[in-house]
Amino acid sequence: MKLGFIGLGVMGRPMALNLMKHGHEMGVYARRAEAVAPLVAAGAVRYATPAELAPNAEITFTMVTNSRDVEEVVLGEQGVIHGAREGSVLVDMETISPAVARAVAAALEAKGIAMLDAPVSGGPMGAAQATLSIMAGGKAEVFERVKPLLACMGKTILHMGASGAGQITKACNQLALLVNAQGTAEAMTLAHACGLDPARVREVLLGGVAASRVLELFGERMVTRDFSAGIEARLYHKDLHIALGLAHEAGLAHEAGLAVPAAALTMQSVNALIGRGEGGSDLSALIKVVEGMRMRNAE
Amino acid sequence: MKLGFIGLGVMGRPMALNLMKHGHEMGVYARRAEAVAPLVAAGAVRYATPAELAPNAEITFTMVTNSRDVEEVVLGEQGVIHGAREGSVLVDMETISPAVARAVAAALEAKGIAMLDAPVSGGPMGAAQATLSIMAGGKAEVFERVKPLLACMGKTILHMGASGAGQITKACNQLALLVNAQGTAEAMTLAHACGLDPARVREVLLGGVAASRVLELFGERMVTRDFSAGIEARLYHKDLHIALGLAHEAGLAHEAGLAVPAAALTMQSVNALIGRGEGGSDLSALIKVVEGMRMRNAE
Repeated sequence: MKLGFIGLGVMGRPMALNLMKHGHEMGVYARRAEAVAPLVAAGAVRYATPAELAPNAEITFTMVTNSRDVEEVVLGEQGVIHGAREGSVLVDMETISPAVARAVAAALEAKGIAMLDAPVSGGPMGAAQATLSIMAGGKAEVFERVKPLLACMGKTILHMGASGAGQITKACNQLALLVNAQGTAEAMTLAHACGLDPARVREVLLGGVAASRVLELFGERMVTRDFSAGIEARLYHKDLHIALGLAHEAGLAHEAGLAVPAAALTMQSVNALIGRGEGGSDLSALIKVVEGMRMRNAE
Repeated sequence: MKLGFIGLGVMGRPMALNLMKHGHEMGVYARRAEAVAPLVAAGAVRYATPAELAPNAEITFTMVTNSRDVEEVVLGEQGVIHGAREGSVLVDMETISPAVARAVAAALEAKGIAMLDAPVSGGPMGAAQATLSIMAGGKAEVFERVKPLLACMGKTILHMGASGAGQITKACNQLALLVNAQGTAEAMTLAHACGLDPARVREVLLGGVAASRVLELFGERMVTRDFSAGIEARLYHKDLHIALGLAHEAGLAHEAGLAVPAAALTMQSVNALIGRGEGGSDLSALIKVVEGMRMRNAE
């Protein structure tokens, strides 16, 4: 099948490569030439704009950074919407606000282009190993049409409901993940403050009910003090803001008023992490915020 | 080996049975006759008091409820200390304050009886399947002597340090577990408020970085609304109080002043759960507290 992929960063690149491994023809677009290079080396065709890429793809995937990027590459002057053929599909995979996802889907639909919001969880490792969890929103028939392609990139692939439902699910995912990261940072800091070896604490906790992917992945980086890996914390900052916005609106279709106190508290920790100038660090650096509340001025 | 087991509740009973499966002779004590029955049926000898049990056991395990229970069955009028032989070992396995664990260990040590604090994580299922995570504190040589027996009950078995280190580790475990349970309750409530099917949300989240044992076990009960299973929430209330106490003291050996804000917030939710009269429910009932903040008065 002729496919397109826009956005070839730490997540998009391995995802696009996994699609190509299944024999699909691939057109690519990214702002940075170095992001495109590995795809071109694997046989992909590079296009100068999303609008030029779009007519050559039956299904186009976007994996950019935030709502503004999606609006630009899809609806902007050189966006997909100006080139995509009627009956083609746009599958949008980064994490953005459900409201923006719905608005973009509506704009595309007016031109006969279907859209699926299909954000993922699993991180760079899940992207590389094609074991991502993919949560999709949009029409059921569009989901069924795209599902075999999603299966080239992920393992757990569920249709969550109408347009926006994928992004709402992702917001719930990020809420759970981030609160768990805050709790993990507190637990590891407590262990260290009490004179225990955090590496051993992590190991024994992984054998019990406190076990989690967060403790496994971010807990390891908290222990090794390697805060360079993974996805930049500023992206989680964006995601948790989306989740809090949803709670603020209580799901768009409902009356306002859902209290998510642990998520709100965790947002303050992530704010503090950004304020420390560590927005580019891995989320595991959250432990520095917890530790920072204990540091003496001299340190 | 001649063993003793005191406290045969939802955790202790399967643990004692797993020890017996490996051919050990077992003496048992519990306040309630019905708790002892399955053990006696399997060949265990029932004793009327811990003091009468103790001289017949080389190693005695205690799996009672709280600090007061441990003090009673070990140091009380009819406690283990009045019967145990010099050179024998007491392995204390429920979750109690590290300070109490150390005090009881010191009292036993004065009589030539060694003690290991060895709390567990894994719940009733882990106890039944002998897959518990066991975190031990005490002398290394005592740990090595007891380890083959711990291996009859658990899979991940680590020596965390001196007396009390097992309980400190367990406090960190419970902190991480409970904050994650609060986040899980918020995420599932947000999903439901936004019109999604919480069962599908749980399923797709389990495939990504938000995956955790808490989402697996407690998340399922939040979805099925079965709050009767597992361990009573009031026990987690006790455990989190211990973790907060440790942070308050910052690990006994250190200066005070460790901030664990998400743990403190979660304690308030667990307080509210107890206040709703649901201390006997499963911890998954925590979702009712989050939902309760949204309920109208009429409901």
